[in-house]
Amino acid sequence: MKVVIVGGVAAGMSAAARLRRLDEDAKIIVFERDEYVSFANCGLPYHIGGDIPERESLLVVTPERLERQLNIEVHTCHEVTKIERGRRVVHVFDRQQNRHFEETYDKLVLAQGAAPLQPPLPGIDHPKIFTLRNIPDMDLIKLNVDDGAESALVIGGGYIGVEVAEAFRNRGVNTYLVEMLDEILPPLDHEMDRALVHHIQSMGVGLLLGRRVESFRDVEGQVEVRLDREEAVRVDMVVLAVGVRPESSLAQEAELEVGSRGGLKTDQHMRTSDPDIYAVGDMVEVSDTVTGEQTMVALAGPANRQGRVAADHICGRDSAYTSTQGTSIIKVFEMTAGGTGATEQTLRRTKTPYKKIYLHLNGHASYYPGTHPMHLKLLFAPGDGRILGAQAVGVDGVDKRIDVFATALRAGMTVFDLEHLELAYAPPYGSAKDPVNMAGFVASNVLRGDIEHWYAEDYPDDTKDGRLIDVRTRGEFAEWHIEGAVNLPITELRERLDELDSQTPMYVYCKSGFRGYLAARVLQQRGFSKVQNLSGGVDTFRLYHRLLEGFSEVDIPFVTYAEERFASNQ
Amino acid sequence: MKVVIVGGVAAGMSAAARLRRLDEDAKIIVFERDEYVSFANCGLPYHIGGDIPERESLLVVTPERLERQLNIEVHTCHEVTKIERGRRVVHVFDRQQNRHFEETYDKLVLAQGAAPLQPPLPGIDHPKIFTLRNIPDMDLIKLNVDDGAESALVIGGGYIGVEVAEAFRNRGVNTYLVEMLDEILPPLDHEMDRALVHHIQSMGVGLLLGRRVESFRDVEGQVEVRLDREEAVRVDMVVLAVGVRPESSLAQEAELEVGSRGGLKTDQHMRTSDPDIYAVGDMVEVSDTVTGEQTMVALAGPANRQGRVAADHICGRDSAYTSTQGTSIIKVFEMTAGGTGATEQTLRRTKTPYKKIYLHLNGHASYYPGTHPMHLKLLFAPGDGRILGAQAVGVDGVDKRIDVFATALRAGMTVFDLEHLELAYAPPYGSAKDPVNMAGFVASNVLRGDIEHWYAEDYPDDTKDGRLIDVRTRGEFAEWHIEGAVNLPITELRERLDELDSQTPMYVYCKSGFRGYLAARVLQQRGFSKVQNLSGGVDTFRLYHRLLEGFSEVDIPFVTYAEERFASNQ
Repeated sequence: MKVVIVGGVAAGMSAAARLRRLDEDAKIIVFERDEYVSFANCGLPYHIGGDIPERESLLVVTPERLERQLNIEVHTCHEVTKIERGRRVVHVFDRQQNRHFEETYDKLVLAQGAAPLQPPLPGIDHPKIFTLRNIPDMDLIKLNVDDGAESALVIGGGYIGVEVAEAFRNRGVNTYLVEMLDEILPPLDHEMDRALVHHIQSMGVGLLLGRRVESFRDVEGQVEVRLDREEAVRVDMVVLAVGVRPESSLAQEAELEVGSRGGLKTDQHMRTSDPDIYAVGDMVEVSDTVTGEQTMVALAGPANRQGRVAADHICGRDSAYTSTQGTSIIKVFEMTAGGTGATEQTLRRTKTPYKKIYLHLNGHASYYPGTHPMHLKLLFAPGDGRILGAQAVGVDGVDKRIDVFATALRAGMTVFDLEHLELAYAPPYGSAKDPVNMAGFVASNVLRGDIEHWYAEDYPDDTKDGRLIDVRTRGEFAEWHIEGAVNLPITELRERLDELDSQTPMYVYCKSGFRGYLAARVLQQRGFSKVQNLSGGVDTFRLYHRLLEGFSEVDIPFVTYAEERFASNQ
Repeated sequence: MKVVIVGGVAAGMSAAARLRRLDEDAKIIVFERDEYVSFANCGLPYHIGGDIPERESLLVVTPERLERQLNIEVHTCHEVTKIERGRRVVHVFDRQQNRHFEETYDKLVLAQGAAPLQPPLPGIDHPKIFTLRNIPDMDLIKLNVDDGAESALVIGGGYIGVEVAEAFRNRGVNTYLVEMLDEILPPLDHEMDRALVHHIQSMGVGLLLGRRVESFRDVEGQVEVRLDREEAVRVDMVVLAVGVRPESSLAQEAELEVGSRGGLKTDQHMRTSDPDIYAVGDMVEVSDTVTGEQTMVALAGPANRQGRVAADHICGRDSAYTSTQGTSIIKVFEMTAGGTGATEQTLRRTKTPYKKIYLHLNGHASYYPGTHPMHLKLLFAPGDGRILGAQAVGVDGVDKRIDVFATALRAGMTVFDLEHLELAYAPPYGSAKDPVNMAGFVASNVLRGDIEHWYAEDYPDDTKDGRLIDVRTRGEFAEWHIEGAVNLPITELRERLDELDSQTPMYVYCKSGFRGYLAARVLQQRGFSKVQNLSGGVDTFRLYHRLLEGFSEVDIPFVTYAEERFASNQ
């Protein structure tokens, strides 16, 4: 059997290695367009930023080692230019030898990935505008920083954009990050990214949310990035990180079936509409674990596993790749943020019924040093309590909780199962009631009718019909409270019940939700007609309503267009 | 309804708080024998060691706050001395007022915990021999350290013993740790604790394994701890941490049913043989999730959840506590070790069929700084691949993997499910193929017949019939290899196959198992009759056979009895 693999990074190389392990006799040929195979693409920003000092450490495996250890033929700088499905042949262009040739295959695996989008903006071809996809891209960007670039602007607030902005900041570059939407990091719902926005700004990045880049212009070798509102920023370099599109042109020319999102369609064995051609990694559409929708997810984990499944199936095994749940994580300076499953935004868009809760809990026992509160959001089905999604933002222990939620979601667990998870506890690692258990407790309380919640977004309109009761201490209330609230500390509630009218809706709240829950239970059992507790308390409320304190935004040295035009008219 | 709770720490206080939230009208009375309720008992060693500087931070909740916030009557220094089940009355002794009284109950919850064992050894009543269960114990031990104790000996290599030894060492005390068995930390199998033994010794603790304490003797205010082999150590203080026994005497006098392990028997609602009496926490027997055996597990997480279940059931709810899987974790200086589910030892004892694999993988991407290899062991069912247990020892990311395994085990997942888990990956947190996925891959390979393993314990007897093939590089082989092995680097294997006799069993190995797997696949597919790869490679082999280097054991200033006797005869 002869298998040709197009693309030698994550998914393609996983397929190649697995193929060899399963079939010692197969002829395995990998064509990689670029110079490097199997490099650590997720590590690129960290080499620019200096966290990974050795460039070589990103070159996981060399073609020579693949040849010697796995007997895989790897051809770098070889571009596959055409697939002739009828003849089972690919046309290959060897860029180094400037030579065209054909290669036959029994099975073909497409693993071409996705390319950074290049929005068609005026001036986009400026030599100091970069994208970051591979080692040469990284080298070029890093060279500019090493050579003394003093300022940089990153476009796009997704994972790569934020990682690159952090890398620049770590190198002492004046860094701006522009995002068209009013939020960053799409795997997080809007209210969940607020602490990160705050943190990024406090680390000295000039974050421009809800701003549109309109054009670029060269000003004495610098890039003038023109934004809406006739404002511009001049920087030494620009990195575009506005998303990726699947590299599907080769497949489309070969008339392989493409889905509505532009990615290749495959069955569960990663087989395209041609049974001899497989497609894996960032270029394929996958089924979403929670919503069942077709979706595109550019993640290394799924890519690797898809490569493995394709190899299995080529070798006659029944392995299946069923779905992608989009588990992801990012380090944002000192913080960590991640999520798994559907976001609230997705559930709304797909009209999937859901409930949600917010919690603020420490990564480990509060009395053991080095922990911080984590902002948790859990989305679950109103009926059976099936976990639909989870997000966490914090400092310590975020990755662990995301992985536990991801495992539970994949297992089809419910919030009632989370109550009973037996997780590892010692003070440096968690709490006897882990944040995951606590999420299970609170969500189960909701489904059992023990508590009703109101949410930050209900204020002020949907809380007007009742009273806002702040059950924190007098001191906490004096420091800050929601406008219109009255203070009735939980410790006085039972004695002062007669001050409240049991027919008026009661919207209670505390700092993070726990005392509010206690208060709501009292009121509910004392015959109050409608009692709701603010989910996530003041902590979530202030994030949602952007009432954060204690940092100053970076002062951005805007240049205005109007001035410019006027100036050039002189 | 009137509920009396005996014991006000983890399980008891969980029950009390949950009861109040569910029933605002209940009268809830807690009797605690000691001075403190709801303290952080897992934090005690860390206050002694100085990691937790503030003693107050361990006192989670005061009786006053429980009264004010939850309307719970808490009586400290009140010992329940008798249960009269017929009259539904408990006899209480108020130690502060020196007063006996009776209290009626509708429902009684026993949450008395477990007490440290005091082995009946000569001299055990020496005033410098302590146990560590509660705040006064901690205060006393810490006072001795603060007052200049220069040496200490801890008896018992379980979690508490190791934590206390670390605490003493952190305070600069010359510390010895004596364990009767040849291993420490029972939730780990023997070969898994080796790296920790090494680490503890290299941190300067004098670790005495397989040594028996026979008696104690006062020598000018010091404790002379006499061991077997007529050796003794003289120290300023001793801490006993040799296990606990359930505080079941009150229950036994009331003729509540007790199990074979000495703990109280309960149903899934934590109800004892008397339907009006519940028992929760360290004093009860639970069902083991994996083996189904009745067992005793002193862990804070299960205790808390049992308290909650009891409260639910008292309030007419159907909540159930089904089983305990024994998920646990410990920080050992710079390392972390943990486990979940059954150990190999337990599976053997209960004659449960199992398979096992070992892996050595980094906590996160090897090219991102700050990671170290983790020693993983996975136990699974030979038939369907159900996860039976997992253990991990390492530096970073251990707690996360234990929690993922614990969640998967609780969900009834198989090793095939682990292959497909979609865990959070970015270089600072994991790998695209997470160690948990890798464990799934390797275990699935075993069950699918793609690989057979040999194990460190098979050497030398069970590998005599074949050849030991070291597939590492020449350099690695030259540095160290298993006696009797020949070197055939994986990169040369395909060309040199004719040097091997295909009818001879081949026992291949490499550093951690991966290259050996590749080699085994080649040999297997080339018609070799029996091919096995060393699970965990040299890394596991050296741990099992105790071939660790690079540290020197602490020199222990033994005093011999014989000398002593002779001396005292002068």
